[in-house]
Amino acid sequence: MTTDAGPAAPAPVTVELLGVLAYGELSAFDRLAEDARQAPTLAGRAQLSTMAAAEIGHFRVIEEHLAASGVDVADAMAPFVALIDSYHASTAPRSWPESLVKAYLGDGLGADFYREVARWVDPATGELVQRVLADTGYSAFAEREVHAACEAQPEQRDRLALWGRRLLGEAVTHAQRVVAERDELAEFIVLGSGESGGVAGLIRTVQSAHGKRMSRLGLS
Amino acid sequence: MTTDAGPAAPAPVTVELLGVLAYGELSAFDRLAEDARQAPTLAGRAQLSTMAAAEIGHFRVIEEHLAASGVDVADAMAPFVALIDSYHASTAPRSWPESLVKAYLGDGLGADFYREVARWVDPATGELVQRVLADTGYSAFAEREVHAACEAQPEQRDRLALWGRRLLGEAVTHAQRVVAERDELAEFIVLGSGESGGVAGLIRTVQSAHGKRMSRLGLS
Repeated sequence: MTTDAGPAAPAPVTVELLGVLAYGELSAFDRLAEDARQAPTLAGRAQLSTMAAAEIGHFRVIEEHLAASGVDVADAMAPFVALIDSYHASTAPRSWPESLVKAYLGDGLGADFYREVARWVDPATGELVQRVLADTGYSAFAEREVHAACEAQPEQRDRLALWGRRLLGEAVTHAQRVVAERDELAEFIVLGSGESGGVAGLIRTVQSAHGKRMSRLGLS
Repeated sequence: MTTDAGPAAPAPVTVELLGVLAYGELSAFDRLAEDARQAPTLAGRAQLSTMAAAEIGHFRVIEEHLAASGVDVADAMAPFVALIDSYHASTAPRSWPESLVKAYLGDGLGADFYREVARWVDPATGELVQRVLADTGYSAFAEREVHAACEAQPEQRDRLALWGRRLLGEAVTHAQRVVAERDELAEFIVLGSGESGGVAGLIRTVQSAHGKRMSRLGLS
């Protein structure tokens, strides 16, 4: 149903997906900004702060897209605040390399998930999601810093590899909880993924890409 | 002296001015991001986070400008980290309205100072400074929120007015310390300001504009 006021209201499940994505970006901003403070150098602090600012750029794109359809981004995000905060609370980095690994893998995990999902929504939303997930351009920085940290202290490598696996586990657990609480979202994933196997198939896709990223960090 | 590698190296005092400005932006990002976490609503948190991200946009403009002349922004910022951190430590907001008042007045104070100074440097740097100081577009948001807070709790008005005066005092004290430690900067201000009266004249200009901003917040 359209009105003279603007484009058609998006499907409720699209609002949910964009709500999770928006709060994912806003909370990533918050955590990266906090982690930036722990950087060992001014240059590292500036880099992580810039990554954080890029998340807000993405957040604003979603906010404007929703606003154009009369949806308040704060309303769309509200149902997901507690679970995403819980993910971050359970994965608070305790060192600079842990911050970098989390930023790098977290960005990647989110991108994997949304890249799949972008194919199942209306084209305008799909295009928006692709735009929001464009690499913030700091992957190379994170890879370089993590490699340098592991060379400086080789015993870090095992600890960071464990940390990377824990991040995947926590992300999957929290994502499953989101889906379990939102019937429409679960149904949307089952329908969208089709023969590639619903939520379980989606998790397999994300796991495989996670492994490749761990390799690029030298942590496999 | 120019080399084939890029434009002429900027005057040392220009590097100092851009160094203070760059670290001012980077630390403002950090503080705004921290304050955003205390926002009473998701909408307020998103707004303050967006203000924080805008500071990084400005920071990057300075970084690129310095890099084009072969100057590392981290080197340019280093001499000013301790004093600017000390300003922020002495003015840590204890409530959401205090955060907004600090963000609003702090942005304004910085802009006043640099708008004066922009007239005394080379044209390319002057143009850059003007661009970096363009209103981040959130003044209206801060004014609205502070007015609303004072209407909801009229006893806040006096406390916030006191807070606003303290912020000016701390900013002036810290700016004087920066100048006292950097002879070239002091000389540059005396020469640049000419008949309008050196550092004291600059402080008078900033004070007068501060008073107008306090009025716009309803705190005069």
